[in-house]
Amino acid sequence: MKKVVLASGNKGKLKEFNEMFSEYSLSVVAQSEFQVPDVEETGTTFVENAIIKARHAAAITGLPAIADDSGLEVDALEGAPGIYSARYAGVGAKDTDNWQKLLGALEGKTERSARFQCVLVYMRHAKDPTPIICQAAWEGRIGLEARGDNGHGYDPVFIAEGGELTAAQMSSDAKNAVSHRGKALEALLAEFRNKGII
Amino acid sequence: MKKVVLASGNKGKLKEFNEMFSEYSLSVVAQSEFQVPDVEETGTTFVENAIIKARHAAAITGLPAIADDSGLEVDALEGAPGIYSARYAGVGAKDTDNWQKLLGALEGKTERSARFQCVLVYMRHAKDPTPIICQAAWEGRIGLEARGDNGHGYDPVFIAEGGELTAAQMSSDAKNAVSHRGKALEALLAEFRNKGII
Repeated sequence: MKKVVLASGNKGKLKEFNEMFSEYSLSVVAQSEFQVPDVEETGTTFVENAIIKARHAAAITGLPAIADDSGLEVDALEGAPGIYSARYAGVGAKDTDNWQKLLGALEGKTERSARFQCVLVYMRHAKDPTPIICQAAWEGRIGLEARGDNGHGYDPVFIAEGGELTAAQMSSDAKNAVSHRGKALEALLAEFRNKGII
Repeated sequence: MKKVVLASGNKGKLKEFNEMFSEYSLSVVAQSEFQVPDVEETGTTFVENAIIKARHAAAITGLPAIADDSGLEVDALEGAPGIYSARYAGVGAKDTDNWQKLLGALEGKTERSARFQCVLVYMRHAKDPTPIICQAAWEGRIGLEARGDNGHGYDPVFIAEGGELTAAQMSSDAKNAVSHRGKALEALLAEFRNKGII
């Protein structure tokens, strides 16, 4: 069974990857199993930060590594919170702090278009010069208030295009079919098949 | 006419981009027109180095920026010379020095598979969190000797898949139709159309 390390401490993501690869002989293991410490994300782009995390995990474990980076781009805020989405209201901010700050920043604004971005990266080893990069977006707009409780991050204030539901009001299956993350995962799976990794 | 800066000092590339965009109202200008100094390429991947160059040019000029990074991956050398292709035989090395070193490193080896890699990046501005990234490869193998004089870099020792000609023996048109660079440029043009940039 081929092993790949996931450069994330998120157990939900680990489960998601292992479900995706369940029919293949590929096992995704948490970097916490190898005591990989956190690494500073010094990039200004999602892809740089994902590469930094994947390279770090690959260097320490000696395994191929998958990493992701994602965030919310709001047009009226010139793309903010962007790569700072998780710490928009400060380091260690809770989801509610972040989206409350966002609603405040957009108060009175009618231009509320936004999109979630997700970048997934796969590195064969720490010095891999050509990581697989899958980037996908989910278009929508920021609502006037928070709605729904199925989700995390900015989901309660993000209204996906083509409807009135927030991401936190959609079922997980419905969300996975159209979301930035669902589309990036699907693209990664296709690239893995293409390149004979699975 | 929309202006984009090219983060490269290569006049051939400038001409190539302007020809590609000739039917659109987009003008690609050299970074030398703005006295953009060189920036250190500290990445370990082609995409990081392209982003570093594009961000630097965008920051100094205030314009959107295109950058490229490319190189040769040789399987028997674990991917070397990779991101160090231009300086494989040392900083400031000539093309002949580089491919001679490569032929030496592969002497007596029968496993000679290799591929050219090209990554193109477009950043709307220096803080763009989601650059457009187009990555393409050209599969082939390293010959036993140099042949041809139409080309640069490792072209004389790279035999493209599906034939016996080296990249330096192919016409520019034939090369552009199948090369890593040709395919990455085509992908960039498609992305530009998709995203309404042209």
